[in-house]
Amino acid sequence: MAKQQKNAISPIRSEDYPEWYQQVVKASELAEQSQVRGCMVIKPWGYALWENIMRVLDDMFKATGVKNAYFPLFIPLSFLEKEAEHVEGFAKECAVVTHHRLEQGGEGGLVPAGKLSEPLVVRPTSETIIGDSFSKWVSSYRDLPVLINQWANVVRWEMRTRIFLRTSEFLWQEGHTVHATKEEAVARTEMMLDVYTRFAQEYLAIPVIKGAKTASERFPGAVDTLCIEAMMQDRKALQAGTSHFLGQNFAKGSGIKYQSAEEKEAYAWTTSWGVSTRLIGGVIMTHGDDDGIILPPRVASSHIVLMPIIKGPQDNERVMAYTESLARELREKDYGHRKLIVEIDSRNIGGARGWEWIKKGIPLRVEIGPRDIDENAVFVARRDKSHREKQSIKREEFVAGVTGILDEIQQALFDRALAFREKHTHRIDDKNDFYRYFTPRDQEKPEIHGGFAEAHWCGSEDCETRIKEDLKVTIRCIPFEAASPREEAGQCISCGASSPRRVIFAKAY
Amino acid sequence: MAKQQKNAISPIRSEDYPEWYQQVVKASELAEQSQVRGCMVIKPWGYALWENIMRVLDDMFKATGVKNAYFPLFIPLSFLEKEAEHVEGFAKECAVVTHHRLEQGGEGGLVPAGKLSEPLVVRPTSETIIGDSFSKWVSSYRDLPVLINQWANVVRWEMRTRIFLRTSEFLWQEGHTVHATKEEAVARTEMMLDVYTRFAQEYLAIPVIKGAKTASERFPGAVDTLCIEAMMQDRKALQAGTSHFLGQNFAKGSGIKYQSAEEKEAYAWTTSWGVSTRLIGGVIMTHGDDDGIILPPRVASSHIVLMPIIKGPQDNERVMAYTESLARELREKDYGHRKLIVEIDSRNIGGARGWEWIKKGIPLRVEIGPRDIDENAVFVARRDKSHREKQSIKREEFVAGVTGILDEIQQALFDRALAFREKHTHRIDDKNDFYRYFTPRDQEKPEIHGGFAEAHWCGSEDCETRIKEDLKVTIRCIPFEAASPREEAGQCISCGASSPRRVIFAKAY
Repeated sequence: MAKQQKNAISPIRSEDYPEWYQQVVKASELAEQSQVRGCMVIKPWGYALWENIMRVLDDMFKATGVKNAYFPLFIPLSFLEKEAEHVEGFAKECAVVTHHRLEQGGEGGLVPAGKLSEPLVVRPTSETIIGDSFSKWVSSYRDLPVLINQWANVVRWEMRTRIFLRTSEFLWQEGHTVHATKEEAVARTEMMLDVYTRFAQEYLAIPVIKGAKTASERFPGAVDTLCIEAMMQDRKALQAGTSHFLGQNFAKGSGIKYQSAEEKEAYAWTTSWGVSTRLIGGVIMTHGDDDGIILPPRVASSHIVLMPIIKGPQDNERVMAYTESLARELREKDYGHRKLIVEIDSRNIGGARGWEWIKKGIPLRVEIGPRDIDENAVFVARRDKSHREKQSIKREEFVAGVTGILDEIQQALFDRALAFREKHTHRIDDKNDFYRYFTPRDQEKPEIHGGFAEAHWCGSEDCETRIKEDLKVTIRCIPFEAASPREEAGQCISCGASSPRRVIFAKAY
Repeated sequence: MAKQQKNAISPIRSEDYPEWYQQVVKASELAEQSQVRGCMVIKPWGYALWENIMRVLDDMFKATGVKNAYFPLFIPLSFLEKEAEHVEGFAKECAVVTHHRLEQGGEGGLVPAGKLSEPLVVRPTSETIIGDSFSKWVSSYRDLPVLINQWANVVRWEMRTRIFLRTSEFLWQEGHTVHATKEEAVARTEMMLDVYTRFAQEYLAIPVIKGAKTASERFPGAVDTLCIEAMMQDRKALQAGTSHFLGQNFAKGSGIKYQSAEEKEAYAWTTSWGVSTRLIGGVIMTHGDDDGIILPPRVASSHIVLMPIIKGPQDNERVMAYTESLARELREKDYGHRKLIVEIDSRNIGGARGWEWIKKGIPLRVEIGPRDIDENAVFVARRDKSHREKQSIKREEFVAGVTGILDEIQQALFDRALAFREKHTHRIDDKNDFYRYFTPRDQEKPEIHGGFAEAHWCGSEDCETRIKEDLKVTIRCIPFEAASPREEAGQCISCGASSPRRVIFAKAY
């Protein structure tokens, strides 16, 4: 199998990107569809990645003063209705609990019984249920700020689902904060966007653009939604994290009031911010190649697999002893927030062994055979390079330099993704050019399209809607970067009216 | 307030134990009731305790080869029905999702819409939904064992709820394993009970008795349920963890089959095991005193609070600088799985400050005033001793010895709890004595009763039921400890028939 195999994944990216994605998820053993509509099973290799994401983000949140807590899974319908836009935004896609037991029905099977007096919605997000607690926790300016985060599952009844990117149930964190002033709440909204940016770029090796959503793309009930947007390898955008300034909307809905130092009562200002298991989809689509996923070392489920090569019983003991002593040595080394995670795979299954680890995206594969041991060397392959490229390295040198190699891989992944995004980002000022840019040239491959367009927009929802209807292209964000060409004035790409600055247009997940 | 106050909690334990419990939960800010029936809000101080419990247990599980994964929140009704005893056990208390959106009803409010073709049960436990995945993961003996754990929320629609002890939604871990042989599955069931025992005793400082449940107290669908039982300060038992040998019941229900090395197809053998946020209730009721909770240092939300004493502006800078430098020094020290967690509380609110921390159960309270600084000393109070007892210790000595003091507190809590249990455990051989032991002497205080009784039981469900109906006393477990007096033969405490060994009878949570 190993010899004639060109690539581990079929189809490859250029043939059918959406199907390539599904095959990569399957081959990597990150997750699988469950029998429950739209819900996924996160398998150990995928969950280990999520554990690392949680660990790193959790430390970053705590460093800003945030504490974790846990709030109910169920939201009474009347709570959700406290913020009008909010309930409208989620009413069409929520799981509703209506009964609290099962009993024998007429035809022998069990049927729901014990009808609830008020239906309960399985949380799609927790602003209203957490707001209820906050209204009790806050009474004086001395109680502020309240800085809370929750790691939880949420449910949004999506009609079309796709593992990690859009599932009925997903895992996430949702931060919720309460402040005395608007300025402080806005500052917190921006601070958490910065945390997400650092995390995406430094840990997931995903370059992102920071910006604000237009009114039509805001979180239901938010005054302002900030976001980070990344480019996938099909040149579509993926929203990788959002941070919402909620103004006083939810404070008024939930009654979060405080008495100021001057003994005046006022509504507080709140924020919320979240990232989810969707990030794993982003990792796959940013870094994956035609052999499968490539895990960024700083969050990888494991860092290194050692594969002893045992040709006959005479080698067994010597090779295994060497392998195990090397593993012990490597496992002592610190890397990021943890020690190096080292797997030993001694299965005698030929080339299939190496391919399995390639498809799982482990950063380093190390082969150890009798001849390598004679030379006190190991045979190393990096996942960011071609699967054919392997290098013999002296054991001491490898052990001493291994975290450096991992850092190199981490950086290479980021650089490659950034170069890709830059290559597929264009400033476009002509309407015809813009339409051509986003019109697939090959009708057989509707997924191939332009990329990101930096173009002018007058600010009207009409123009935004027209472009969306014509091209399925949306404004991903109004980017923050100051002193960039985006800040220049110009003419709206749709109507030609004057525009203060460029925004990012793209197709999106 | 500080001076005239005798105890921080009212009522005290001897006056009204259940109400004492509620007041302790409230005063400690561990958790609170939510507006959602039977669901709790776990506040930051309580969640930090749960985070430590998770961290330590997770490491212990992983050391035995277990990996984490995540499975759907929703279980199709047809899955639950795959194991007959199982569905019967949970049908009476489950949240049922019947609709997937909300729409405007006739009277203006929103009503459930989009009826599901099959109702979904919010998981009360996940044997059947995980079993479905296992049936796909396992096909050969080479795929075994499968060793999986999930950290998750579960819902059991309890009619009478009590924070941490019995809530409609709670957090837990559920381990699920698959094995080729009965022996291996039984060994895993016992191994995980041992993990729970070590965790309860060494981290929560709760002494436990290991044993097996009688048939009537088993997990629905299990062949054997092992458990650890602890004694609370009202002398009732709390089941603190369970480990189930499921035989082939669930493997048959879910179709978990494998081909052996001899190419024969066979059903696998499975286990499941779990502990929950209920453990926090156990910590409260094992260690709490009339001033509130006492957190065992090895899992405490924080270890030490530093309370600078600032009498006037002239002291401010000096005392704060000293406090902060001490905090920095302490935070460098390792303790168990983490660094020491040190709080600084510089609020100027008089004695209320110290009482707040007493009620929160922090292991060490340290006062730092100008006079202490002059002597380069700190004023230290241990939470396991009377709130009046404080000791001046030289700063260097305190820093050098602080983890030793925490270990002493940890040990003192365990010793005290063990002595209490031994004091309230009696071997009883006479039926009248047994009935008197469990009959409240003071009708005003129905919660005061005997404790644990080591008594003989013939093994019949009739005798077990009679005792339960007469006294509300159940067999907590058939204890494991070999070579103890429990192994002797005797006569059943209820019917007088011959009995192979003693079991533990008690009232229970």
